[in-house]
Amino acid sequence: MMISDTTNTPKYYQISRQIIAAIRSGRLKPGMQISSENEIIKKYGVSNTTARRSLLEIERAGWGTRIKGKGTFVRERNVQRSATRILGFTRNMIEAGYTPSTKVLDVRKIAKGFSSTINGRRYAMPGPVYKIHRLRFANDIPMMLEVRYISIDFCPDIAKQDFTGSLYDIYQEHFGLSLVEIQQTLSTVMIDAGTQRFFDVRVPIPAFRVEGVTFCGKEMILEMEDSIYRGDKYRFSVCAKP
Amino acid sequence: MMISDTTNTPKYYQISRQIIAAIRSGRLKPGMQISSENEIIKKYGVSNTTARRSLLEIERAGWGTRIKGKGTFVRERNVQRSATRILGFTRNMIEAGYTPSTKVLDVRKIAKGFSSTINGRRYAMPGPVYKIHRLRFANDIPMMLEVRYISIDFCPDIAKQDFTGSLYDIYQEHFGLSLVEIQQTLSTVMIDAGTQRFFDVRVPIPAFRVEGVTFCGKEMILEMEDSIYRGDKYRFSVCAKP
Repeated sequence: MMISDTTNTPKYYQISRQIIAAIRSGRLKPGMQISSENEIIKKYGVSNTTARRSLLEIERAGWGTRIKGKGTFVRERNVQRSATRILGFTRNMIEAGYTPSTKVLDVRKIAKGFSSTINGRRYAMPGPVYKIHRLRFANDIPMMLEVRYISIDFCPDIAKQDFTGSLYDIYQEHFGLSLVEIQQTLSTVMIDAGTQRFFDVRVPIPAFRVEGVTFCGKEMILEMEDSIYRGDKYRFSVCAKP
Repeated sequence: MMISDTTNTPKYYQISRQIIAAIRSGRLKPGMQISSENEIIKKYGVSNTTARRSLLEIERAGWGTRIKGKGTFVRERNVQRSATRILGFTRNMIEAGYTPSTKVLDVRKIAKGFSSTINGRRYAMPGPVYKIHRLRFANDIPMMLEVRYISIDFCPDIAKQDFTGSLYDIYQEHFGLSLVEIQQTLSTVMIDAGTQRFFDVRVPIPAFRVEGVTFCGKEMILEMEDSIYRGDKYRFSVCAKP
């Protein structure tokens, strides 16, 4: 396979993107060996400098790990989720290079509402509220089991919507609501037998439990959440300033 | 026991603080029953309204859980840690009502330095750096196993300091350094056999692994961290804004 000379993109970068595309598509899986320097030289007709830079670029971009004397291997890649940025699952997955999808497990009206303590404060949504239970996937891997409680006052006919995409988009596009703040408490739990089934895992794994409350204005609760993020697939990033 | 009438603090509040003090001191332990309404009426000579408000206040403050028809019980209390505020262990524990203490396990100079990927970026501290390994306690309960790598450039004679307290205080008081930003990645891990020993637990428990980098100026790395926070004792609070 030859790399086109007519573009301004450096060759090493083009090669790295082709290999990363193979990882993203699932043709190259975590733990598998990526072509060696010599294989890249032969396959793409490039110098050893370019071949080496291609592998370094794959490593730099977080898709490969070099093991001395053995080669470069596809990295088991966690999704990083910023806890300090308002970013829904859908967009988070797209930014991470995955294709998001959603299975709606249950939608129902809860007459008595919902309440929970988040970051030391008690928040209550008077009933009725909608409870939406969904399983969310990245490239068909189940990542997160989500329960959200949505205000009927702010989203009166939301049950008519399609819940296979971003709820944030529905809030914005159908109800003209913007999110102004999200408070979340992160705890660690072992995934129990009932939840293992959803995640298609056979052994107990640790997970993040994320309990949250989302505001669309001062003291205006738009939704609350109680979700499980797989610990073997997720990391949360945070930034603290004085 | 009588409650003084000469102060402006409401009686229910004074009673709740006495009971909370008993919980904090460890005389009342998680799971134990707190005095009933009738017991409070007799013991403090107050009305049933005041007794009821005392118990509600204990619950509101997060120290008790009411179980219908059974009474109020001392809550198994996690420590909440803000991930978006710069707050050391010492001050976090004091604010949570605990007495912090520290066991220094190891202090050594690492010739080759330290590097790690935090929130998708590679950070390197050229050697030598100090590595400080500590076990940190709240009311004598081991909470967190901490490894910190400290810049010798910024803190040249830090090895002479007493490491049983706050490193943040040492940075500020001895070296005049202020923290300007902390980047952290939170992941979940199972506490392994080697670490169980430090935490004095017999069964595997999930934990938070916190990898971080702390800056004392633009691109100036003061320290890096790789610590284990017990999942059964810690929750992290975060706040996201647009």
